[in-house]
Amino acid sequence: MIISTRALEAHIGATVALRGWLLSKQVRGKLAFLGLRDGEGVAQLVCEARSLPEDIFASLGSLGLETPLEVKGRVVLPPGKTRPELAVSSLRASPCDPDYPIGRKEHGPDFLMEKRHLWLRAPRQAAILRIRSSLEFACEDFLHQEGFYRFDSPLITPTACEGTSQLFELDYFGKKAYLSQSGQLYAEAGIAALERVYTMGPCFRAEKSVTRRHLTEFWGVEPEMAHVDAEANMAFQERFIRAVLSKVAVEREQDLVELGRDPGSLEFGPGAFPVLLYDEVLALLAKEGREKPWGEDLSVEDEEVLTRLFATPIFVYKYPVACRAFYIEVDSARPELALASDCLMPDGFGEIISGGQRARDLGFLEARIAAQGLGRESLEWYLDLRRWGSVIHSGFGMGIERMLRWICGLHHIREAIPFARNPQRYSP
Amino acid sequence: MIISTRALEAHIGATVALRGWLLSKQVRGKLAFLGLRDGEGVAQLVCEARSLPEDIFASLGSLGLETPLEVKGRVVLPPGKTRPELAVSSLRASPCDPDYPIGRKEHGPDFLMEKRHLWLRAPRQAAILRIRSSLEFACEDFLHQEGFYRFDSPLITPTACEGTSQLFELDYFGKKAYLSQSGQLYAEAGIAALERVYTMGPCFRAEKSVTRRHLTEFWGVEPEMAHVDAEANMAFQERFIRAVLSKVAVEREQDLVELGRDPGSLEFGPGAFPVLLYDEVLALLAKEGREKPWGEDLSVEDEEVLTRLFATPIFVYKYPVACRAFYIEVDSARPELALASDCLMPDGFGEIISGGQRARDLGFLEARIAAQGLGRESLEWYLDLRRWGSVIHSGFGMGIERMLRWICGLHHIREAIPFARNPQRYSP
Repeated sequence: MIISTRALEAHIGATVALRGWLLSKQVRGKLAFLGLRDGEGVAQLVCEARSLPEDIFASLGSLGLETPLEVKGRVVLPPGKTRPELAVSSLRASPCDPDYPIGRKEHGPDFLMEKRHLWLRAPRQAAILRIRSSLEFACEDFLHQEGFYRFDSPLITPTACEGTSQLFELDYFGKKAYLSQSGQLYAEAGIAALERVYTMGPCFRAEKSVTRRHLTEFWGVEPEMAHVDAEANMAFQERFIRAVLSKVAVEREQDLVELGRDPGSLEFGPGAFPVLLYDEVLALLAKEGREKPWGEDLSVEDEEVLTRLFATPIFVYKYPVACRAFYIEVDSARPELALASDCLMPDGFGEIISGGQRARDLGFLEARIAAQGLGRESLEWYLDLRRWGSVIHSGFGMGIERMLRWICGLHHIREAIPFARNPQRYSP
Repeated sequence: MIISTRALEAHIGATVALRGWLLSKQVRGKLAFLGLRDGEGVAQLVCEARSLPEDIFASLGSLGLETPLEVKGRVVLPPGKTRPELAVSSLRASPCDPDYPIGRKEHGPDFLMEKRHLWLRAPRQAAILRIRSSLEFACEDFLHQEGFYRFDSPLITPTACEGTSQLFELDYFGKKAYLSQSGQLYAEAGIAALERVYTMGPCFRAEKSVTRRHLTEFWGVEPEMAHVDAEANMAFQERFIRAVLSKVAVEREQDLVELGRDPGSLEFGPGAFPVLLYDEVLALLAKEGREKPWGEDLSVEDEEVLTRLFATPIFVYKYPVACRAFYIEVDSARPELALASDCLMPDGFGEIISGGQRARDLGFLEARIAAQGLGRESLEWYLDLRRWGSVIHSGFGMGIERMLRWICGLHHIREAIPFARNPQRYSP
């Protein structure tokens, strides 16, 4: 019976087969230790000369890293060890080139990104990608349970409604088109049909700056809800984050531990996530020695200082209108404030979700579009959503790679996606 | 308590609230019948003059279609009717423009596509999109249960490895890039890390022809599996199709019925889906009066004739090598045959899945690439997957819109996606 490396513990004393790839080897006389990795993890294989045909044991020394292996043996838990090993009684290797380019020595990030198609196989990288898969599915699973419908917004769009500077331009049968930065405007069309929808797809941002936090192609989940105001939106986000992180913590406990991350740190106590008004945040920052004029958006450094003061995610609410996009609703009592919120992760991490209540009134939106000098024509269809059937509604967007970066404690976002794209790299 | 229109049946005799949009109205003296749609379906509202404030009843005549409504009343099942109605005791309408552009008269497809952001709300369109959501989630749910990891392949790619004629070209910071047609080659990198992966994302094809079956932007699910050969691949596809269709049939029974589709037609008997060899298919087609020379791919018309002969999906297996891409493995006994299969849906529908075993040997792939005159340089990373750790593996791709078109019995694929893109349309 072929089992996964992760199932070894449940088979101590039994004879099983494993199938995978050679990760490491040490041959010492009549004993060889091989590391075997498969899709779930890594197992230690113990090969004794007396237990294997002579030619097979002799061949171990020349096996190249990444050689496909199929082995049989008995699962043993050596005294003093915590993880079972396989005492190998048969081994079959498939052909493989020698000199696998990724070795045990340190490689620079450029080299590793150039070899990303192979680097993915490193146990740490594979663990991150398993966590990514669980994170994405947990998001969708929660939203389906909450009565949402998946609604795929288009990626090829005609509009450059917020300016073209951060858009990738495309030749669409001789016409100019742009890759979508967000599915939100389309999702707003979806809620008048289905009430609760989400998009789950790639987003494109032609930002020239290369940082540890940005990708030009990233994945976003963007729920949008009819009949939900800005405050109910934040309450929903809290439930979403708790449910998703909790599921990831359970499903990928071992991967998190192997990344040096305590799965318990993905769960927060019972108290609601604090909601801080923008005005309060300015006061808090001033106390920390960071005075800033009213009306400015929070910088990455501001968020870092702020989130070090909290042990749970926090919401920052009611940003100045000028800091937010044209479609955000304003506070009727203080129209200089937007009913927009960001959710910031603790430990200095910062923004993970941006959301808000969408403006409902046609005249208000028309004025905002004119004031910001946006292309009205390309937004006529969006204005139609306010002409007919306009209701209170809210939504938010979460970047998958940002959340994954927080979950895994990654220094750089390039490890949070199978093939990262930045202004300097779009291959392999 | 606000309930969904779909929950009315469970509340007969109770007083409930509904929230939605005005779909239709008929005012006859002291009686008005309103159709109310929400995210789940449609309910009939019965408004009697004696049960509502005078001004409210009087206002009903001037309510525009798509007016947001919140109503309360008692759920009643009138004698002789099968669907409950709401006897309205209170009604609140939000402002709405008159003259909703989509009326009860027939509109041409161009007009409806121009107003797609509103047309989505039509009960038939919303039902299709709910089925789409269930279909997509059923695919992912099944694959996660089967131990697959989601693996997001990049959309911006450097290669035009199969020629640029069907690729959308992109300006990537001054360099040429292309939108991906398929995640498969990247998924093949994923299996050496995670064994079983799938991509679920948009695919782009710059095909100039406008047909009922093609979109320039469509969604695909592409599972890829290590240690699986072409025949196990087909067996897996059969399980996948059965599980997904069966879940959709249960979850969206009412929507299917409303589209005039028998949910039972999504379930097939216990016998395995027939596997026909390409050679056998030629003989069958000849019997139907469609002689064709050995070596030619099946046309849409061939598939139509062929699938009318079967009541279940069928596989066509072992196509001529020349009909398939460079990466497909060949039959060692008859190297003119590719270990590739298509799954065709019955009733004249045709191809829904294309799959196959991938070539494992480096030398074979190099020869295929050279013979087809493909750009070797841009495929070096892909060849690396054969240099190190190459194992038997297979995979397949299913177009979401194609499957949805079969499920819903749609004449035209443009109804199978929220915002369809074809060579003539990329707005709204």
